[in-house]
Amino acid sequence: MNIDELKLPQGLSNLSTPQLKQLAYEIRKFLIKSVSKTGGHLASNLGVVELTLALHSVFDFSKDRLVWDVGHQAYVHKILTGRKDGFDKLRTFGGISGFPKTSESVYDAFNTGHSSTSASAAMGIARARDLSGDDYDVVAVFGDGALTGGMIFEALNDAGHSNSKVIFILNDNEMSISHNVGALSNYLQRMRQKPEYFKSKDAIEEFLSSLPIGAQAATKTAKRAKGALRRKVIPTTMFDNLGLNYIGPVDGHDLDALKVVFERAKKTNVSSFIHIRTKKGKGYKPAEENPQMYHGISSGSTGAVLEDYSAAFGKTLLRLAEDNDKVVAITGAMPLGTGLSEFSAKYPKRYFDVGIAEQHAVTMAAGLSIQGYIPVVPLYSTFMQRAYDQILHDVCLQNLHVVLCADRAGVVGQDGETHQGMYDISYLSSMPNMTILSPSSFSELDAMLDYAVNTHTGPIAIRYPRGNVQTEYHSAFTPNKAHFLRDGGDILIVSSGRMINTAKTVAEHFNAQLIALPTIIPFDSQSVSEYAKDKRLVVTIEDAVRTGGIGTLTAAALCESGTPVPMLICAFPDVPITHGSVSELDKYYSMDAESIIKRIEEKLNG
Amino acid sequence: MNIDELKLPQGLSNLSTPQLKQLAYEIRKFLIKSVSKTGGHLASNLGVVELTLALHSVFDFSKDRLVWDVGHQAYVHKILTGRKDGFDKLRTFGGISGFPKTSESVYDAFNTGHSSTSASAAMGIARARDLSGDDYDVVAVFGDGALTGGMIFEALNDAGHSNSKVIFILNDNEMSISHNVGALSNYLQRMRQKPEYFKSKDAIEEFLSSLPIGAQAATKTAKRAKGALRRKVIPTTMFDNLGLNYIGPVDGHDLDALKVVFERAKKTNVSSFIHIRTKKGKGYKPAEENPQMYHGISSGSTGAVLEDYSAAFGKTLLRLAEDNDKVVAITGAMPLGTGLSEFSAKYPKRYFDVGIAEQHAVTMAAGLSIQGYIPVVPLYSTFMQRAYDQILHDVCLQNLHVVLCADRAGVVGQDGETHQGMYDISYLSSMPNMTILSPSSFSELDAMLDYAVNTHTGPIAIRYPRGNVQTEYHSAFTPNKAHFLRDGGDILIVSSGRMINTAKTVAEHFNAQLIALPTIIPFDSQSVSEYAKDKRLVVTIEDAVRTGGIGTLTAAALCESGTPVPMLICAFPDVPITHGSVSELDKYYSMDAESIIKRIEEKLNG
Repeated sequence: MNIDELKLPQGLSNLSTPQLKQLAYEIRKFLIKSVSKTGGHLASNLGVVELTLALHSVFDFSKDRLVWDVGHQAYVHKILTGRKDGFDKLRTFGGISGFPKTSESVYDAFNTGHSSTSASAAMGIARARDLSGDDYDVVAVFGDGALTGGMIFEALNDAGHSNSKVIFILNDNEMSISHNVGALSNYLQRMRQKPEYFKSKDAIEEFLSSLPIGAQAATKTAKRAKGALRRKVIPTTMFDNLGLNYIGPVDGHDLDALKVVFERAKKTNVSSFIHIRTKKGKGYKPAEENPQMYHGISSGSTGAVLEDYSAAFGKTLLRLAEDNDKVVAITGAMPLGTGLSEFSAKYPKRYFDVGIAEQHAVTMAAGLSIQGYIPVVPLYSTFMQRAYDQILHDVCLQNLHVVLCADRAGVVGQDGETHQGMYDISYLSSMPNMTILSPSSFSELDAMLDYAVNTHTGPIAIRYPRGNVQTEYHSAFTPNKAHFLRDGGDILIVSSGRMINTAKTVAEHFNAQLIALPTIIPFDSQSVSEYAKDKRLVVTIEDAVRTGGIGTLTAAALCESGTPVPMLICAFPDVPITHGSVSELDKYYSMDAESIIKRIEEKLNG
Repeated sequence: MNIDELKLPQGLSNLSTPQLKQLAYEIRKFLIKSVSKTGGHLASNLGVVELTLALHSVFDFSKDRLVWDVGHQAYVHKILTGRKDGFDKLRTFGGISGFPKTSESVYDAFNTGHSSTSASAAMGIARARDLSGDDYDVVAVFGDGALTGGMIFEALNDAGHSNSKVIFILNDNEMSISHNVGALSNYLQRMRQKPEYFKSKDAIEEFLSSLPIGAQAATKTAKRAKGALRRKVIPTTMFDNLGLNYIGPVDGHDLDALKVVFERAKKTNVSSFIHIRTKKGKGYKPAEENPQMYHGISSGSTGAVLEDYSAAFGKTLLRLAEDNDKVVAITGAMPLGTGLSEFSAKYPKRYFDVGIAEQHAVTMAAGLSIQGYIPVVPLYSTFMQRAYDQILHDVCLQNLHVVLCADRAGVVGQDGETHQGMYDISYLSSMPNMTILSPSSFSELDAMLDYAVNTHTGPIAIRYPRGNVQTEYHSAFTPNKAHFLRDGGDILIVSSGRMINTAKTVAEHFNAQLIALPTIIPFDSQSVSEYAKDKRLVVTIEDAVRTGGIGTLTAAALCESGTPVPMLICAFPDVPITHGSVSELDKYYSMDAESIIKRIEEKLNG
């Protein structure tokens, strides 16, 4: 039996357990070989091979609906649903996405990327089913990491109260990207270690039978006592408390056990909460031993951490923390990705990993700040979106000194549309009291973070890109002022961050003046207007979405100055930005130097 | 003993229970009289009189820190902390706020307004205390409504795992603004009705002693069985499961009981979760009987619902739902405020109240939409902020047909800075596939909602103001096009929504051309640029924050058109917008017609 000879996924239901095991082995072999070559999420996918096989054996996801939380663990699902041959182009421009995409397959029910959305989406789908009087199953699979995000709790609270049936599967691998934290994680650990505490009804019945009173005296009193006890101890898990039918914990690598519980959940007409235990990286020793390193690997990666903005941030923060004991750091389950590993080891008391809980992270930071601490909160730009209201309502309205670091700001590349950090300027710029900085080199990031921590008061956000693109300009950072980078003719180019390199090429081509905005907000309207005066054209170039970005801020400044100038705004369009390498995406969206030169020429000639 | 003769709040700790009861009576009398006159949140404050008195009797909140979730229930706290005389100007311009404000009193530890933030803020404060080696208590008070917001779960998950002690108080009155929903609400109800299930250790011990085996046979087997049982049934509540020390339920109107549990929580060195039961509106019959109506009352209110945009929305939705059975409605615990009462009664199966859970509300809507339903989701603009990422990531990236209604968009008045709906244009405009509409009359709202439901596909948001300001212009709604309202000279005024009335006055003063933007996004750059061509000045007037609003969008359009025109952008500044009547705030921020005329004159003469 060979994976390529099977009619998938329909053929799975006819396979014997040994055949499924053989298939699991083949899939792992394929994943390790393929993802090591292309890069991508390896450890999480190795962990869900049996889970995915069992799901497709029991359900028919051409009509049943399956929502993968986060979605980076959907590779096996993709392999089983006709996309195996696409894996040599996984996450590349024009190739298949690293996340579920309804546009790729009817087997993908809902696009995911951010954490903790699956239960809500599944509830909506289940309600639609019931309103239409249809008959199919809706399954949501989420990790114990996703369970630390409050949104999933909102959905479970709703689900446990609703008559619309959903099968919730908790894939408990004790990890988000790093090890999980929080009381719930402890609780799940207790459930794993002492499942007899939580086996609920059956176990309690068994225990009751074992009580000596059962054999000795069938008196009314004893019966009543048993009845009272039964009510007292049932339901036993917090998921039962939320109105869901808890099943577990189940070994997530035991195909037979998985199929049994899925069949059981399928047959019952209430919502189930199935708790399965898996091992991240299962079947590949290096990944089992270091799942954090193998969470996401780059193409041809050896797992080594490159010097990038995240690492530079981490290094500066260490220095600042040494000099100022008020500096504390908060992460939303991503110490490694955001460069906090060393800080967490050196300053464990001043380091808080709150789980995938950006809302709490930011408001908790506000609490620390109001008592005089200086919380530094690095979040990927795309995940910072999840704390929009906390930044505005809790930090900005109170004008609290919280240092937000928007890592992976701008185009992020292979993770694609759900992960692009395109929006931070737009969503942060209108918040009261907010300052936004954008470094274009590690040394500038160093200066900015120092300024943000030691000089600035109030809310401040520093946005920096994924990777290590640095500019050649090494001017000292002056807060709140545009930086003059290059003199030139009757064209002014305004840029910021990693785009300064592109802007420089363009400026040289046209012999244009070039200024940078290391401080985006407060916007230096006065300098920009003065530089723009009497120019023929002002071109803005930014690594962000167009609306609400530097281009629109520049336009407002020019028009209000009284001497407006024609403009060309070069930014990413207000559409979902696909996956691919950063340079491919720059080119595709006409944001590389060559395209911009062409656009300027058209503008000048038009 | 009279309330005005006491040294408050310090004096409370010396009062006897009868004296405290007398004080509670006086406070209620004062509240009813005062709030009936000024307007404000009555029912919730009547419910927490004993709670607040007991808190201030046991703790010293000049050093201990108290965070009120949402904060509209902090009136009693304000009365007890030197602000009683300010109540005749409650929520008025220049007067005391209806919410906690650190700027008003050292007794206010953290500003609140939105739901479910208190536990996070308290955790941050507690961690700051422990880092500093200080010794004071941190108390967070939240309702069972706030507990439906996922953010509080993120904080409890963190708290139960942390060594930083916080005293969490659940004020369980079975209400948000309307009756609470969800599985957790059922769970709390079971706790209230059968407290013996949840009394944990003591009750279990008692029960074990009552078992016949206790008296009859002190065998090893029986002892082992008891031990196993004890482990099996402890901890019993989901809050214990989260690592918190659950105490309750306690009668929240029993001053002695409250003081006892607060003292107990104060003495222990772990975090407590105190569950108290209160009655919203307690002590005032009309409010007890109809707490939803008396949740927030207007000055001189008789409780009658005026014809306003929310009501107009509700009426249109009923009509649309009758014609199209795919239309469903979702609310985040606010059926009355958003105009959904009739819909919920008429279409209970197509109506979903998910609790104070905006994130879940929006992604659940996405799930319904992907299966072909048309979810209409009215949320106050300020609360919609809490679903920023869900709108962007789950709705917009998938281009799903979800109708968002941003009620209370723009200046909202008395609730002040935490509730102003200033940001929706800024945060929605940069999202892919988004359309934003802004009606200026009930009939236009009707046409827009019809269009959004029956004609449009993809994400769409309709923003409408609090109240009932309508314009006199009655042009038929044409999607995606600027509306020409008034011909004039060499000034062009661009406006939208309720500001069109102001704009009209200004236009008449200067004999200016006037256009309206019923569709804000996609921005009608072409028409705006054409109308603006050869004008001396373009003035934009909008009920929103400046950055990212109509003014900046207009500037970008003008500059990119190649023939830019000087502009004056009239919008609310990027600062926290205080409380007061809408007309007072318009004037204070120079957004009334008179101020704008003056600003234009200065611009023309400058």
